[in-house]
Amino acid sequence: MIPYKSIIQINKEKDTAIYLQLTSAFIGLIKDGTLISGAKLPSSRTLSQLLEIHRKTVLASYEELQLQGWITTVPQKGTFVSSKVPIIVQKDFLQNKKTTKSEKAGFSFYKNKHLIAHEEKVANSTIYINDGIPDTRLAPLKELAIIYRNVVVKKNTLQFINYGTAHGNKDLRKNIAKYLNETRGLKITKDNVLITRGSQMGIYLSAKLILKPEDIIVVGDTNYISADRTFLNHGASIKRIPVDNDGLCISSLKKLCSENTIKAIYITSHHHHPTTVTLSAERRIKILQLAEKYKFAILEDDYDYDFHYNHSPILPLASHDCNGNVIYLGSICKSVAPVFRVGYMIATKDVIDEAATRRKYMDRQGDALLEITFSKFIASGDLQRHTNKVLKIYKERRDFFCKRLKEEVSEFIKFEIPNGGMAVWVQLNKKYNWGDVSRISQKYKLVITDWKNYDPINSGHNGMRFGFASYTIEEIQNLVLQLKKTFLEVKKLK
Amino acid sequence: MIPYKSIIQINKEKDTAIYLQLTSAFIGLIKDGTLISGAKLPSSRTLSQLLEIHRKTVLASYEELQLQGWITTVPQKGTFVSSKVPIIVQKDFLQNKKTTKSEKAGFSFYKNKHLIAHEEKVANSTIYINDGIPDTRLAPLKELAIIYRNVVVKKNTLQFINYGTAHGNKDLRKNIAKYLNETRGLKITKDNVLITRGSQMGIYLSAKLILKPEDIIVVGDTNYISADRTFLNHGASIKRIPVDNDGLCISSLKKLCSENTIKAIYITSHHHHPTTVTLSAERRIKILQLAEKYKFAILEDDYDYDFHYNHSPILPLASHDCNGNVIYLGSICKSVAPVFRVGYMIATKDVIDEAATRRKYMDRQGDALLEITFSKFIASGDLQRHTNKVLKIYKERRDFFCKRLKEEVSEFIKFEIPNGGMAVWVQLNKKYNWGDVSRISQKYKLVITDWKNYDPINSGHNGMRFGFASYTIEEIQNLVLQLKKTFLEVKKLK
Repeated sequence: MIPYKSIIQINKEKDTAIYLQLTSAFIGLIKDGTLISGAKLPSSRTLSQLLEIHRKTVLASYEELQLQGWITTVPQKGTFVSSKVPIIVQKDFLQNKKTTKSEKAGFSFYKNKHLIAHEEKVANSTIYINDGIPDTRLAPLKELAIIYRNVVVKKNTLQFINYGTAHGNKDLRKNIAKYLNETRGLKITKDNVLITRGSQMGIYLSAKLILKPEDIIVVGDTNYISADRTFLNHGASIKRIPVDNDGLCISSLKKLCSENTIKAIYITSHHHHPTTVTLSAERRIKILQLAEKYKFAILEDDYDYDFHYNHSPILPLASHDCNGNVIYLGSICKSVAPVFRVGYMIATKDVIDEAATRRKYMDRQGDALLEITFSKFIASGDLQRHTNKVLKIYKERRDFFCKRLKEEVSEFIKFEIPNGGMAVWVQLNKKYNWGDVSRISQKYKLVITDWKNYDPINSGHNGMRFGFASYTIEEIQNLVLQLKKTFLEVKKLK
Repeated sequence: MIPYKSIIQINKEKDTAIYLQLTSAFIGLIKDGTLISGAKLPSSRTLSQLLEIHRKTVLASYEELQLQGWITTVPQKGTFVSSKVPIIVQKDFLQNKKTTKSEKAGFSFYKNKHLIAHEEKVANSTIYINDGIPDTRLAPLKELAIIYRNVVVKKNTLQFINYGTAHGNKDLRKNIAKYLNETRGLKITKDNVLITRGSQMGIYLSAKLILKPEDIIVVGDTNYISADRTFLNHGASIKRIPVDNDGLCISSLKKLCSENTIKAIYITSHHHHPTTVTLSAERRIKILQLAEKYKFAILEDDYDYDFHYNHSPILPLASHDCNGNVIYLGSICKSVAPVFRVGYMIATKDVIDEAATRRKYMDRQGDALLEITFSKFIASGDLQRHTNKVLKIYKERRDFFCKRLKEEVSEFIKFEIPNGGMAVWVQLNKKYNWGDVSRISQKYKLVITDWKNYDPINSGHNGMRFGFASYTIEEIQNLVLQLKKTFLEVKKLK
């Protein structure tokens, strides 16, 4: 008889049930050929004594193995390894006696060369120069948690916790429509609203609807890199036009339209990403006219509409869109915290319905409870109040950041004070390059990683975005000091 | 002077700020040609008296219009409509004086013919025959809300509410790995885990990685229709093999492999969807061997592994996967409630990392707070306890449902008692058809909509799934009675 006592290890401390451990052990012995077809297993009493476990446990294991087809019980004779287990299996598995998961896939799969993986952040005492993100320490977590809890315990919430619609919660759609009508001058109903999980989902879904391989989409020669990558990921052909102080250049757009079939244009009208310039009112009308004439879509990503410091923002193209050319994207995330993935896609009903159908096959639906929570947060005016509150704080931070930049490092950079948004567009003196700066800055616990993302065509504008909103005044002070030390050391290299 | 008092309507009750209403009104007048280029605007004092609003409000509006470029102020002379506003705009907009959003898009977009839009549910007193969904009334909402709230108010949660990784929360990945190792006999680490928002996302991401247009994927001749549609959506070529009482037929699979280049096979090993049969242990080994030989991916969708009534389930193919051929999908949703979109995709690290990169461009990341909540829910053993609790209840319901079906309608249908899962595979007597049944059943407040989904190749098996888990004993009683009345009336048609 096989020395079961030595080769079967039962660990009573483990969470896995003993009869399952035993079952697993037997399967292993059968697969690796230790127990061959037709081999007789010990009686349950014998095995229970050998392994010092309950007889019932052995019986449960034998029952399990039999149900799975590994063994058969012959009345009056005993229990045997099943003859139907393929012998070839045993030999094969003798070769491949691996105990951990293979490192590499056993099949070939497609990698997309345009998409870039996520980079993990490292130490906590480091300052990460960011693209312009909110300060999560200001997020109204307690208020949201209270609303969420009240939503969850209400009796009539039950209807919302089953499978729901891919369009998003109906009340949130209504409240978003109302909120956008009031703040953006839109004229929409809930039928024009798809609740997304943030702007990126809106860009992705729009690309799905508008772009097939080699379809042309127009963007600025500097553009939001994730949008570029999303379009390339869909096989689109990207055509770039210059960006000046009033935004995208219309004459270049007109030329492109007359020479090509344009499917869409992607714009960040309120503050161009990355340069922060505002698309002028006049150019907005012209883009709308061209879209009507050439029947292309305008993908308007209004990612920071709510953050304007000097005056009310110019109304988005979506507010003047009589012909259904605009797909308007935005999110609540930037106003609250990136973890709350609630955004919206606004378009004519036919586009919204198709987008919802596509969305259904991506992730089925949003988070209905979170959507209801935000619906109440908006309807009560809390979102607006919160936005007003952080706006004041961000304005202070913008002012201080720009003041300090001017005072400390104006020898190395030039910039305009942005009238909105969470970042400054900083152009480095052309004597220097961001590669050197980012290499040396690490010494001063300053991490600058994304500069390459801002110049996809290598035009040499030497600009990048410096987010200021996520830092306190003290942190900004420290950031600028470390930046200055970095620049001074870079200067010595020359 | 233009009769401003009559044509500008200021509504002080509206939420929109008055100066914004005024700005909007002026823009409208300029756009529709009422105020042409160079026209002089009234002084702020005059207008404030005419409209009975504060002079400061008019000044704010004029400042706004000037910043936006619609008007210019000439010192000592007055305020004039800007000459730079294109005259053509005014004529165009005279034609298009629409006030609401266009119904149809002003551009063409692609519709996917394989994807089906969501169907809204109607009245509450109606019984919806479902595919096998959990009873949301049993969902541990209060417990989850408490964990969620505690997560949200903890100080160290702040690090999680910023932008995070597309792989999902690290602790949840560890806990899922541990949970699956213990319950499914896997041997994985967190590197093999991507947290999805449910099985559908796992199917979608897998399709993205494995299937390019015309790539071949093998499925059963009856299969989970959403998976079929997802694959077709990606342009894949679907090849079907028969399904018998032991699951997919291996001989047919072998033949396909020898004649074609197979990229993947999609299986629901525990309980085939829709027929609920279990893939035998022997066939599991054979599929793994074929995958190793022909280097195709095995997409194992283990959607209801946790729900088994008679004995422990046969371990999934993923537990015997030494060569990295299996992508293993599952979700927490079915155990808890569909609204909590937390699922997992298990594969070799290279596949998981590419899937995470793709995911990042779809919806950026999951819901970190919900992921942390579920991480704790799993680690504390609460998930297992909850699953054990509902398992008992579902078993009762299965037994009662099958008993009543047998007692009342065995003349019309045949079925096997499923040893797991939340649905019974019910085959209608071939004298009848589900079309008639579903038409007549509406009279008895019984809604049967999905029967066509279960026979995509029109083989005439006349089967469909009847979920039982989501109903109480009383509701099951009522369901079967209404079903009987329906059948009797259908019988009279013949």
